[in-house]
Amino acid sequence: MKVGDRHYHTIWLNEDGRSVDIIDQRWLPHEFRIETVRTVDGIAVAIRDMWVRGAPLIGVTAAYGVAIAMLDDASDAAIDTVWEKLHETRPTAINLRWALDEMRAFLRPMPIADRAEAAYLRAAEIAEEDVQLNRNIGMNGLAIIKEIAARKKPGEVVNILTHCNAGWLATVDYGTATAPIYLATEEGIAVHVYVDETRPRNQGAQLTAWELNNHGVPHTLIVDNAGGHLMQHGMVDMVIVGTDRTTANGDVCNKIGTYLKALAAKDNNVPFYVALPSPTIDWTVKDGVKEIPIEERSGDEVTFVQGRAADGKIAVVRISPEGTNAANPAFDVTPARLITGLITERGVAKASPEGLKALFPERT
Amino acid sequence: MKVGDRHYHTIWLNEDGRSVDIIDQRWLPHEFRIETVRTVDGIAVAIRDMWVRGAPLIGVTAAYGVAIAMLDDASDAAIDTVWEKLHETRPTAINLRWALDEMRAFLRPMPIADRAEAAYLRAAEIAEEDVQLNRNIGMNGLAIIKEIAARKKPGEVVNILTHCNAGWLATVDYGTATAPIYLATEEGIAVHVYVDETRPRNQGAQLTAWELNNHGVPHTLIVDNAGGHLMQHGMVDMVIVGTDRTTANGDVCNKIGTYLKALAAKDNNVPFYVALPSPTIDWTVKDGVKEIPIEERSGDEVTFVQGRAADGKIAVVRISPEGTNAANPAFDVTPARLITGLITERGVAKASPEGLKALFPERT
Repeated sequence: MKVGDRHYHTIWLNEDGRSVDIIDQRWLPHEFRIETVRTVDGIAVAIRDMWVRGAPLIGVTAAYGVAIAMLDDASDAAIDTVWEKLHETRPTAINLRWALDEMRAFLRPMPIADRAEAAYLRAAEIAEEDVQLNRNIGMNGLAIIKEIAARKKPGEVVNILTHCNAGWLATVDYGTATAPIYLATEEGIAVHVYVDETRPRNQGAQLTAWELNNHGVPHTLIVDNAGGHLMQHGMVDMVIVGTDRTTANGDVCNKIGTYLKALAAKDNNVPFYVALPSPTIDWTVKDGVKEIPIEERSGDEVTFVQGRAADGKIAVVRISPEGTNAANPAFDVTPARLITGLITERGVAKASPEGLKALFPERT
Repeated sequence: MKVGDRHYHTIWLNEDGRSVDIIDQRWLPHEFRIETVRTVDGIAVAIRDMWVRGAPLIGVTAAYGVAIAMLDDASDAAIDTVWEKLHETRPTAINLRWALDEMRAFLRPMPIADRAEAAYLRAAEIAEEDVQLNRNIGMNGLAIIKEIAARKKPGEVVNILTHCNAGWLATVDYGTATAPIYLATEEGIAVHVYVDETRPRNQGAQLTAWELNNHGVPHTLIVDNAGGHLMQHGMVDMVIVGTDRTTANGDVCNKIGTYLKALAAKDNNVPFYVALPSPTIDWTVKDGVKEIPIEERSGDEVTFVQGRAADGKIAVVRISPEGTNAANPAFDVTPARLITGLITERGVAKASPEGLKALFPERT
């Protein structure tokens, strides 16, 4: 999407055909830094230290990492080495593992001399597949936004609330939850987005607000506490969030706090949608609340806040008494009963076993 | 309650019988500063600039302000002057106006020569009435905690979630939502408190965590997003919050985000209680969502965060892109249907017109 006057992806191959450029997201929203990565070590650092984040983007970055490794040594052993090295950077990231497996399976049958070139082509394909997948999610979500817009009076905007960052910064382009919003904007539909700041890591305040601002989408930042009040007063027409993992029953695991917004949406008859790339469906799990283990992250993410200080420097401040113990569950599960629909690349599914099976019959 | 080894109130008369000491809460939790206030101007600054906050404490501080004014000039005109001067410091604070009206009505009939001494006595009484009122709320809430504790296995603690700061720092002592917790601790009941950080002003992280820490009550800080997840997993036995205003129907206006916690409590069969000094009942209002206007505060409270920097100084950082527009509704309304009970100084009422009338028959 746009930053200033230019259209960017979050990762792209340079003209030398070897190195890739990425947006170093650690400095957003305060600084827009592009870094050139030329080595496997550089790719590993970028993933591990979260220069890039978001499941789809991590996968694509790793795929390019494999391609870079092939330039020096394209042996089977080298493929295994880069697989190990990159996998350990974020061992729980499903897309990372998927991309590494995919690259290995793709390269192994080939003559060694062809592997480097083929690896770059496959990495570019994986990136392009992500763009297309998000665009398809966007088109399916756009239809919902159009329906809501059609019921509005002239001059009224469609108000959409989102949580965390399921935006283009988490993917190669378009994002998942944001794809319908960007496509609606391109079609000239008047949308306005309420952006949950998304404590404790503030991805809404830092990333989603930055994305929407740069692409020119009207938006308002709110604290995570505010959404229920806005819905009570008819100020939200729909909620769209992303997901890290969806069960075969349609339960959705997403950033902590998503469940509270879904409850408020239900209580106020506001449609609650989840934008859902089908690779994030875990067909082996049914009851999300009972079966999905929730990552408990460091309490420091709660007690310390990063931002830009008055002197222009990035600074960290402690907001609680010294030594305060904080719990920090990173995700929660929204039961399917609270979800209006799952917006996938194939269409909008009911959040139920039947709804998902109807769209993905090959899984039954 | 205790700070270090000493028991404190939030305000007290000095031995000179004229000046009052207050805790300057602007520096909490990072510094515990006590300030001596000797003049009406000092009282006005302390209220306006939020050295003291919380409806009951503001009222008591204003009452002492009137007493200080009487030392120099106890004429009717002087009473009106101090009324005006203090009222304009926080014109929407109901307890402030109540305390000023009370002092004026009390002093007017008296000989001028007696007014100063009488004003100090009345201010001390108002302070003591607040302590007693909170203690009574505490006793009524304690009975609920005892019931929950009785159903626990030996060694299990009662987990209580609270939002914002309805603690002793907002009153003279005990607090409202915290009073049952402090009394339970005094009785030796094992309680543990989940403290919502309470964005945007972080009163939970800054004040409630500090209070509980100093009084030795076990607690864990969480982001406002986390409570629903904890309730889904049986980690919360009850919720107790305070209130700024309660309607005759039992709807509760409290800090933004309270409604979301009430929804999660309902969805998980967790009892949701509101600690409620009866002066905060507004008998003229019925439907809280429709009738109570919600204060919209500066967006800067959302986009800037204050804390202690690495160099030990208090610093403010901006967490969102420069120029990001933020909405900041300060309160929301929790409908009576989501509330298990209203813990008042007279007993626990059902959150309904009948429930409130049964406890306050003089209002029917």
